[in-house]
Amino acid sequence: MKQLFLIGIGTGNPDHVTQEARRVLLQADLVLIPRKGADKADLADLRRAICAAILPQQGGPRLVEFDLPRRGDSAAYLAEVDAWHDAIAAAWQAALHPHRGAPRVALLLWGDPSLYDSSLRIAARLDPAPQIQVVPGITALQVLTAAHAIPVNQIGAPFMVTTGRQLREAGWPPGTDTAVVMLDGHCAFQGLPGEAYDIWWGAFLGMPQQLLIHGRLAEVAQRIVETRAKARAEHGWIMDIYLLRRR
Amino acid sequence: MKQLFLIGIGTGNPDHVTQEARRVLLQADLVLIPRKGADKADLADLRRAICAAILPQQGGPRLVEFDLPRRGDSAAYLAEVDAWHDAIAAAWQAALHPHRGAPRVALLLWGDPSLYDSSLRIAARLDPAPQIQVVPGITALQVLTAAHAIPVNQIGAPFMVTTGRQLREAGWPPGTDTAVVMLDGHCAFQGLPGEAYDIWWGAFLGMPQQLLIHGRLAEVAQRIVETRAKARAEHGWIMDIYLLRRR
Repeated sequence: MKQLFLIGIGTGNPDHVTQEARRVLLQADLVLIPRKGADKADLADLRRAICAAILPQQGGPRLVEFDLPRRGDSAAYLAEVDAWHDAIAAAWQAALHPHRGAPRVALLLWGDPSLYDSSLRIAARLDPAPQIQVVPGITALQVLTAAHAIPVNQIGAPFMVTTGRQLREAGWPPGTDTAVVMLDGHCAFQGLPGEAYDIWWGAFLGMPQQLLIHGRLAEVAQRIVETRAKARAEHGWIMDIYLLRRR
Repeated sequence: MKQLFLIGIGTGNPDHVTQEARRVLLQADLVLIPRKGADKADLADLRRAICAAILPQQGGPRLVEFDLPRRGDSAAYLAEVDAWHDAIAAAWQAALHPHRGAPRVALLLWGDPSLYDSSLRIAARLDPAPQIQVVPGITALQVLTAAHAIPVNQIGAPFMVTTGRQLREAGWPPGTDTAVVMLDGHCAFQGLPGEAYDIWWGAFLGMPQQLLIHGRLAEVAQRIVETRAKARAEHGWIMDIYLLRRR
């Protein structure tokens, strides 16, 4: 591998794909598709569908699938993530080994390659190091605010982007009235005083099964928890994000 | 006007435009193009170029240009912004008045319509209120991190998105080691202790004249200030953004 293309593809709506993403994908010799066994959250079907929509039926890049290692779940979060990234880098190299003649490899990344995505850190472990090209993609944050037709920031004001774990462990972020929360499998908003916040929540953003709820946190928190659990059971996976604003 | 399409177009690279943006633009009856007199920062040429690239030569939406009111510059920042948004809403309505038969109006917005953009707040002033459709676009933040091939966040950590004014007046944002600074005409990073931060700076992101500088803030701050001033003088305008990370 001489070049690695990390291509942001948005959040599952093939219409999010930019001209740049199409152009760079067409230059690849090989596309790596991660799989997580029977876990639908691997989104392998969606990646295959985007490839089928963009690539020519013949003569395009080869699609190579590989099994994504599982992350350990000990209390040592950062150490687990570090070891997991090592394992994924090894899985990439093992999957590519039979295709050593393919100099340009692409990965299709959910959202944007820079936002809570590990691919840049995994790529930094490759030896020899390929040249990296990053193609920005529409993030869940942008699709959330577009779907609710709201600005993310108040006029001239800052906002924090954070994780469910941070909100749960560190509480409301200091220095801002707006927080965007990603990677929250446990509805950390339940730990906040609901009368003091408004929430704009979205799941499966940009996809046919998109769900949106907004309102005073005290009034909609329980509905979000229940809607989320039901949708997750129905579809077998869920991705969601929310914006909280202090009143 | 029955519908208003607020369409994010990225940062000047026509390749940033998504399939969704193309599709929605093609549905419009009329595209509003703001002008700022001789000020090249109005980017009217770029909007015309994107329209020319996407729209059919005949039978597409009509392009209607209008002069953007100027914002007052008193110390009462929020009051000035509020009055300015009133004036822009009136300018939209005046420009649309001769075209009352056009039910679907589009605005092409730099970056993403939700991120430090006023169009949603201006649209909320329209009477009667049109139905609003927001189309997300690639932001300068995403093009910055893609160009430098860096993640915006550290693993599992939060980051603050803020403005030059906030950084200058309130100092380093609490609760995070990463800040993304937008809307900074005065290089507010000069107020920070340069040994303690790394900076990734970019201007004209995605455009042919793109500029990138990164390094220890103490070592590159002066070079950024000079490069920025020179580029602004040369091109007649500049848009830039930077990411700061505490070491």
